[in-house]
Amino acid sequence: MSSKKVVIVGGGAAGGTAAQFARKADREAQIAVLSREEHGQYSRCGLVYALSGVVESFDSLIEFGPGWFQERGIDYRTGVSATIIEPNSRRIDVLKGHNTENIFYDSLVIATGGVPKIPEIDGIHTTEGSAKDGIFVLRTLEDGKHIKERGATAKSAVIAGAGMIGVEAADALRHLGLNVTIVEAEGSVLPTMLDPDVAETVELRMRELGIVVKTGALVSSVNGARGVESVRVKRVADGATAEINCDMLVLAVGTAPAAKLAGSAGCAIGATGGIVIDDRCSTSVQNIFAAGDCSEYRDFITGVPSLCGMGHIAVQQGRVAGINAVGGDARLLPGLVTTRGISLPDMEVSATGPTTDQLKAAGIDVMASRVAVDDRVPYFPNSKLAVKLIARADGHALVGAQLVGSRGAHLRAAACAIAVAKGMRAEELARIEMCYLPPAAPPLDPLNVAAEFLAKRLEKR
Amino acid sequence: MSSKKVVIVGGGAAGGTAAQFARKADREAQIAVLSREEHGQYSRCGLVYALSGVVESFDSLIEFGPGWFQERGIDYRTGVSATIIEPNSRRIDVLKGHNTENIFYDSLVIATGGVPKIPEIDGIHTTEGSAKDGIFVLRTLEDGKHIKERGATAKSAVIAGAGMIGVEAADALRHLGLNVTIVEAEGSVLPTMLDPDVAETVELRMRELGIVVKTGALVSSVNGARGVESVRVKRVADGATAEINCDMLVLAVGTAPAAKLAGSAGCAIGATGGIVIDDRCSTSVQNIFAAGDCSEYRDFITGVPSLCGMGHIAVQQGRVAGINAVGGDARLLPGLVTTRGISLPDMEVSATGPTTDQLKAAGIDVMASRVAVDDRVPYFPNSKLAVKLIARADGHALVGAQLVGSRGAHLRAAACAIAVAKGMRAEELARIEMCYLPPAAPPLDPLNVAAEFLAKRLEKR
Repeated sequence: MSSKKVVIVGGGAAGGTAAQFARKADREAQIAVLSREEHGQYSRCGLVYALSGVVESFDSLIEFGPGWFQERGIDYRTGVSATIIEPNSRRIDVLKGHNTENIFYDSLVIATGGVPKIPEIDGIHTTEGSAKDGIFVLRTLEDGKHIKERGATAKSAVIAGAGMIGVEAADALRHLGLNVTIVEAEGSVLPTMLDPDVAETVELRMRELGIVVKTGALVSSVNGARGVESVRVKRVADGATAEINCDMLVLAVGTAPAAKLAGSAGCAIGATGGIVIDDRCSTSVQNIFAAGDCSEYRDFITGVPSLCGMGHIAVQQGRVAGINAVGGDARLLPGLVTTRGISLPDMEVSATGPTTDQLKAAGIDVMASRVAVDDRVPYFPNSKLAVKLIARADGHALVGAQLVGSRGAHLRAAACAIAVAKGMRAEELARIEMCYLPPAAPPLDPLNVAAEFLAKRLEKR
Repeated sequence: MSSKKVVIVGGGAAGGTAAQFARKADREAQIAVLSREEHGQYSRCGLVYALSGVVESFDSLIEFGPGWFQERGIDYRTGVSATIIEPNSRRIDVLKGHNTENIFYDSLVIATGGVPKIPEIDGIHTTEGSAKDGIFVLRTLEDGKHIKERGATAKSAVIAGAGMIGVEAADALRHLGLNVTIVEAEGSVLPTMLDPDVAETVELRMRELGIVVKTGALVSSVNGARGVESVRVKRVADGATAEINCDMLVLAVGTAPAAKLAGSAGCAIGATGGIVIDDRCSTSVQNIFAAGDCSEYRDFITGVPSLCGMGHIAVQQGRVAGINAVGGDARLLPGLVTTRGISLPDMEVSATGPTTDQLKAAGIDVMASRVAVDDRVPYFPNSKLAVKLIARADGHALVGAQLVGSRGAHLRAAACAIAVAKGMRAEELARIEMCYLPPAAPPLDPLNVAAEFLAKRLEKR
């Protein structure tokens, strides 16, 4: 019996992890990874820290270089792109330079990731149609290096989009000494992560750090003949515009799944534009799996097909796809809980589960509570931890949590993810024994207090 | 209708909290708190931090002084002791100085706490029968002050007992510059909190800090005519003895519930010596509730009646007892999960649920995994977090967790408490979305890795 041939398209967190777990599960399998980039598997979530200089170099973000894979008998190819999949003959065409090679597979894992969305902005290109100097996206290691290079001489930057990447990039450039303005079309920062009332605390901190925050506004045009000299920002509400001088513009308005290749193979593409996968990371086409940012999977709470877009989810899905590609039977959780976080100086911002708007859009009747309580006992230096909890009006099961504080928000969000995944009710979380310890947490943890408050509201309803 | 008369015996975490919640639930109730001590409600768990000097003064541990209660219409009496309860006439006799007062109650909350056990040690008393100078326990604020006073001039100390209080006291005295030896009869430190394999890491850290750790040994005698000059330590295994010179001896061999008063009222006392309570904090006698260290309640996993002995449990029980004492219907969780933690310099030590020995004694068939994995991504300074997870062999539900690391152990133990309370299976915890963020946690959290490892072991069984 000949060994199984596994081809993995994409060498990032999902693809690299798929290769690693395929290898662990099957020592005989022939495994090839096709990567457009040259660096091997690196931490995309670390880019902002290399940009700010908190992490010394971009190269230190490389977790598993091509050589690491080669040593484990994985044919990790760099600088190649897959052009066509022919699922009937299980063939994939791979372009390197001007040469196309046909590779045959038994199983294919598509882990092509995402591409930054480019918004419609007047003057974003030069009159010759090429990208204007000083306009950036932040997706790849090279993107990060380019931004840092420009950041070294630039005086001011505008960031379009205050999602997770936009906010983190804004803070990184501020850290480098630039004057930073961030522009967000929605009414509050981090709109897909936080409800507006929680986002307010984050926005306040950003302002304290010296970042100019303009919500409810869009970058409408870029001025400058060859490079960015200024941008025009338009208020969504009334169309009023203002001009902001800047040396660079970072576009961070979201990421689209790179699903074209999968589409060419006949894989079902969902409403999000992502490749539809099930809990085995199977696509609609036999022997083709997908994982990571290119895929869509149901939200755990709402059931709505959602883009994954998180490093830890890419790793979990890569694991499942890799194991199943060699004939295993690994499974994802039945949906995405989507725990997510960012850090600002002296601030942890975390969430798990859908926002209130997302829950309402899905027709789920919820109630929420928001408290801001001391994160430690009074006789230790302490600060407020803001906790918003959301639970089903019917049955009181927790469905989401949003936390902002100087410490302990990230791990409490993870604790809430467990509560959400297990349908813990608000009144149970109010009683659960968190870890009381004077230097770590008060006897009634902020989660207990928030849950108690929510339970009371639910009871009164 | 006249207002309800509530008497609370004990003004610590349980009693003080009972008074607060009784007042919140009933603005008309007459509430009296009878406290032996003078300070009001203070943080017992903070004593070691005031001892070490991490917290500036013992007085800063006072969270709610007598005046705070008086302002809220609570008659908080200090320096009094309750001597007899007459449940038929709902009478309690209260001694202040030489005067006894009879108080009548509608509801009584017994929150008398615990008293340090005094082990059988030769020469612990002077020939006249009084306590020998230099021998201490650490239970009250006054105890803490006495130890600190002696610690200011003493050169060396021996701690009898390496439970949570013993270990914390040992580190506090080390912090003050004393040579410290800790002696534990069991084979490992923190024996009711950690399995021996996990305790090893803690013991190593204690040794690194300069604490001499003697496990499997007892303090068998105290030498010195009026005060402690040395102690004799006996090895349990073979009876071999050694003498250790020291200026002070701290007894930390456990706490006994102060249940005598409740016993006098006819309240059922359990095998632990604690007052038996149900999920409403009701005792076996009508209109008498109990809460905190004086009570026993079932363990959530084993069902075994257990002493509470934790500040956060005292607060939770005080809340329930207080609300129910004024006619409410608050409930505890159906058992004690007993999340618990201590801190050493650069080390968090936490656990939730029973130890392996406790589970085996209860006849529960379990399997465990232990891993030590990086607590952050490689490009951030990181260290190993040791995670031991325990699950039922049958069904794989998690029943316990023990964590040791330089950061993130406490809050991950709390997350595990949620998993334990909701019967999350090892394979679910392996997949749950913890909060990945480079400065906080790797994409696969140490909990994910430990759970995966455990799930594999369970599957192979």
